[in-house]
Amino acid sequence: MNKHTVTFPGGLTFTVTAGTTLKEIMNDAGINFDFPCGGRGRCGKCKVLLTAGAGEPTAEDRKALSAEELAQGIRLACMTKVQSDLQVEFLSEKNVSHQILLSGLDRTAKVEPHLVKRYVEVDKATVEDMRTDWQRIKDGLAAQGSDSKADTARITVIRDVPDLLRSARHKITAVIHNNEIRGLEPGNTTEKLLGMAFDIGTTSIAGYLMDLYTGKELAVTSTLNPQTQFGADVISRITHVNTDPDGLKDLHRVVTDAVNTLLGEAVAQAGVTRQDVYAVSVVGNTCMHHLFVGINPRDVALAPYVPVIAEPLEINPRELRLEINPAGKVFVLPNIAGFVGADTVGVLLATELDKSEEIKLVVDIGTNGEMALGNKNRILACSTAAGPAFEGAQITCGMRGASGAIDHVNFASGVDYSVIGDVEPLGICGSALLDTVAGLLKTGLIDPRGRFRKPEEVTNPAGRKLTDRLISYNDSPAFLLAGGEAGSRPIVVTQKDIRELQLAKGAIASGIRILIRNYGLEVEDITEVLLAGAFGNYLNPHSACAIGLIPPELEDRIKMVGNAAGAGCKLALLSTGEYRRAAVAARNVEFIELGSDPAFTNTFANAMLFPDME
Amino acid sequence: MNKHTVTFPGGLTFTVTAGTTLKEIMNDAGINFDFPCGGRGRCGKCKVLLTAGAGEPTAEDRKALSAEELAQGIRLACMTKVQSDLQVEFLSEKNVSHQILLSGLDRTAKVEPHLVKRYVEVDKATVEDMRTDWQRIKDGLAAQGSDSKADTARITVIRDVPDLLRSARHKITAVIHNNEIRGLEPGNTTEKLLGMAFDIGTTSIAGYLMDLYTGKELAVTSTLNPQTQFGADVISRITHVNTDPDGLKDLHRVVTDAVNTLLGEAVAQAGVTRQDVYAVSVVGNTCMHHLFVGINPRDVALAPYVPVIAEPLEINPRELRLEINPAGKVFVLPNIAGFVGADTVGVLLATELDKSEEIKLVVDIGTNGEMALGNKNRILACSTAAGPAFEGAQITCGMRGASGAIDHVNFASGVDYSVIGDVEPLGICGSALLDTVAGLLKTGLIDPRGRFRKPEEVTNPAGRKLTDRLISYNDSPAFLLAGGEAGSRPIVVTQKDIRELQLAKGAIASGIRILIRNYGLEVEDITEVLLAGAFGNYLNPHSACAIGLIPPELEDRIKMVGNAAGAGCKLALLSTGEYRRAAVAARNVEFIELGSDPAFTNTFANAMLFPDME
Repeated sequence: MNKHTVTFPGGLTFTVTAGTTLKEIMNDAGINFDFPCGGRGRCGKCKVLLTAGAGEPTAEDRKALSAEELAQGIRLACMTKVQSDLQVEFLSEKNVSHQILLSGLDRTAKVEPHLVKRYVEVDKATVEDMRTDWQRIKDGLAAQGSDSKADTARITVIRDVPDLLRSARHKITAVIHNNEIRGLEPGNTTEKLLGMAFDIGTTSIAGYLMDLYTGKELAVTSTLNPQTQFGADVISRITHVNTDPDGLKDLHRVVTDAVNTLLGEAVAQAGVTRQDVYAVSVVGNTCMHHLFVGINPRDVALAPYVPVIAEPLEINPRELRLEINPAGKVFVLPNIAGFVGADTVGVLLATELDKSEEIKLVVDIGTNGEMALGNKNRILACSTAAGPAFEGAQITCGMRGASGAIDHVNFASGVDYSVIGDVEPLGICGSALLDTVAGLLKTGLIDPRGRFRKPEEVTNPAGRKLTDRLISYNDSPAFLLAGGEAGSRPIVVTQKDIRELQLAKGAIASGIRILIRNYGLEVEDITEVLLAGAFGNYLNPHSACAIGLIPPELEDRIKMVGNAAGAGCKLALLSTGEYRRAAVAARNVEFIELGSDPAFTNTFANAMLFPDME
Repeated sequence: MNKHTVTFPGGLTFTVTAGTTLKEIMNDAGINFDFPCGGRGRCGKCKVLLTAGAGEPTAEDRKALSAEELAQGIRLACMTKVQSDLQVEFLSEKNVSHQILLSGLDRTAKVEPHLVKRYVEVDKATVEDMRTDWQRIKDGLAAQGSDSKADTARITVIRDVPDLLRSARHKITAVIHNNEIRGLEPGNTTEKLLGMAFDIGTTSIAGYLMDLYTGKELAVTSTLNPQTQFGADVISRITHVNTDPDGLKDLHRVVTDAVNTLLGEAVAQAGVTRQDVYAVSVVGNTCMHHLFVGINPRDVALAPYVPVIAEPLEINPRELRLEINPAGKVFVLPNIAGFVGADTVGVLLATELDKSEEIKLVVDIGTNGEMALGNKNRILACSTAAGPAFEGAQITCGMRGASGAIDHVNFASGVDYSVIGDVEPLGICGSALLDTVAGLLKTGLIDPRGRFRKPEEVTNPAGRKLTDRLISYNDSPAFLLAGGEAGSRPIVVTQKDIRELQLAKGAIASGIRILIRNYGLEVEDITEVLLAGAFGNYLNPHSACAIGLIPPELEDRIKMVGNAAGAGCKLALLSTGEYRRAAVAARNVEFIELGSDPAFTNTFANAMLFPDME
């Protein structure tokens, strides 16, 4: 079948089979163009100007358009079937920008990638036109509009010019970032412009391959952060840096290797190549940030816990050994403080806290809990060391939220639970620990200080039915959640587990209290609580409020926003406006160092207690 | 003896022996500060403000200064002996800038280097001041004035921050270019800021090591351009690029190696190190320019002879493998056309043709002759292939202007000559060839077409006395200039040599004529002829006019300006203003391609003839 080339404004070019309609191309490409009648040729609203390739008007064209419009080459996009190469101009720009859609977040943003590609047919030098090759390339770009103006390049790019012009017969594509020509490619490669957003967590790394024109997600990949071989948490990794002369190199290398591996997996999934990837955006906590770019994070772990750098970083892929197109660029989001990193900036970006009229609280719960409180006028943020309890670590029967983990527990009538993968339970994950402790409190099996009551002390009727589950486990009181029959492994929650959870929830709850106090607010002033992160997305809000992790008054204002750090990272990848906003937001956030707040110790001790449910 | 540190405005710091006066320091450093009474403490004009370290006023201070001035710390610079660390502020900035002095050129320029160095004592982070390390460095710089503001850096520089701050105890020096921090160094290194200007000729390379504060020349080095192993001229080198797959690499490598060698020699001469060199400026013809930066110069040799790039280039030293401080930068001057390169831009810069009210002609004579005509309103330029005759090549007894070369010949009474090095003559160089042919013409031994007359045809009385020198050499007429006695080698000028000179001078002279015609001028409109280049500096202007190389009407308007390309290169190294002016001048010059001028063939044929002297 015949193939034709259709070029849209901005040099965006598609090669399609003859007979495809312009509407189909625009829909596939995610070009947000209005077809009010649904593309049936009736409303006459989807006019486009064909500056090259306009064929005979259709019956619908003749009905909807004037004789002058037809003569100019104006046609209805829904009715125009491609029968030759076409050059399409929009008659109004208003409806043609792409929008980014993010699951879990009620928001969109305009796609405006950092790098643009422009196809140029470079004039040949003649005795009458003795401009240099470079000048002719620049002039060809400038003729395409103000966003294609470029006047600088690295010498490596300029060195390519003579051979490239010759081999490509003067038809080339320029990759432009700001006013820099970052690369030149033979022929028209404008169709290929992908990027990848990476959320580098202490435990795992997630990567999202995105189309930089349409904002569409093409592939998602993730892996365990291989830095875990040098320590499970941030502090043990910094210790490795401090004690091993190659420590910094090791940690930098394994994380960039992992990112390269994810890149390879993602492009394979999407059927594209690494060379099609021109932009990478990165979020992570401050330590992950520093290790990814190769900065020693030593001082992040030493009082007063100050990052080496907070500003957004724009880095050439080669300086990070990232295997993407060398014309590309890596955009690392800014940090706020030593323990409030670029991941929190991603959360702010995704949740638009910095644009909100209302006061909102955002909490991203992980090994560290980062939280931010405020609105467009003022944002306070802090970080607390919650420890690993929410991730199921250092809990007697704890495990990560993987197959075999009890993930939710219901005390409504007896003890019901669900298991991930619907298999025999192997352990419990953080959300189930929360549910269990909330149930133990509600049924009076533990007291507000977190102590297991003796069976005879239990007075709550629902609790009394469960006293046979109060067992002794390794000489300590415990609750038998599941198993324990002959041959089956008992799954228990012990007194120690409850203490661990109290430490974790006390850390988060005291952070929230201190933010509210420093802001001069009452709990009721908070209109929305946005829970971000894998755990935040999985927990039962009722349980979270029952144990006092979140102030109980706010239970009906809780909203799960998923991996908001990753969503913010995608936004910063797809939109220069969002990326710039990240820098402004990061700079304006006021960081509260809890350790230096005189009220912290008392607040923390109080916050470890549970609300009195009886 | 005790040493103390004296800091001048802009962070310029010197460590001196106790008892040194401020006047001595300023004189040594080339700080152009006025001491009207010669530094005897009488005029009271050399007031400075000591913001730190002011000691007891001298008797002269008390006499010249008011009580308030003394209390503020104002002292006379000529009388102030350093007895402790001092911080000096100038009370008026007007007399303290450095001036660049160039031999052979009646001009100066203000020293304002591309890169600046600033010493900063970086505040330490505290709980009250949690700015990042990077922010504290930037703030420390910004506090020193608007030219120290910087807000970007490569990741490699940022990576150095944590270890550097620690090892240098927070006392560091930043190397700044525009708004980029290019490097950070421990301690106060502001004293060391050198640069080197390179004039890369087809035949030889000259390098000038300069102090970027004072504009003083610290060392000069030169070498044969090692590219000569791949061909003596531009075209044979381009042929090597076209025929050998490694040709471009070879030519790029050997010239950058040679520049590195010259750098090493220059820093050794001056007793400094490569690490003290932060800036390099480069001029050369377009082919040398392209080969130095690694661009294929193929198209420079193909009609329409267009360079790949003409704009000034700013390149990181590592991309050229230049062994200077990696925080430094290489500044390559712009080209004008394929055969009017950055060397001609250097000549324009040095001669200030672009600032001249009067019409001037600048001619840089070498294997190619580049010339420019005009004033501040309009400049025309062209290039002609003069061939190697002026450099003594392809001349029967020709040699370069080295020891043993006859360099000047005088026909006033008989034939006198001088020999370079006062040794036995080995051959003649270009300037002597010019003198000889001028003498032959004046004495009627050759006719205006350049043909040797037979002895019996010579009628000029002075000529008749020389007819015994008209000999036959290899079966062709020749003039015996020297030697020829028993056992001594005859040094002759043959008919063929005269033809070679006619071709060379015809090329230059026709270029001059076509420039004048295209400009719409008469010869008399030219107020000054500036001869640049080694040969132009060595020739006898009278001979040049006698043979018609330069229009004879202009003989008393000729001025030698020496290696103006090299001087321009130094200016561009020392002064950002001059460097910017180079870019503007290069862009505005109108290039005349002689080959496509319909009058060229005729003009050239006529210009090969000699003026009729009889």
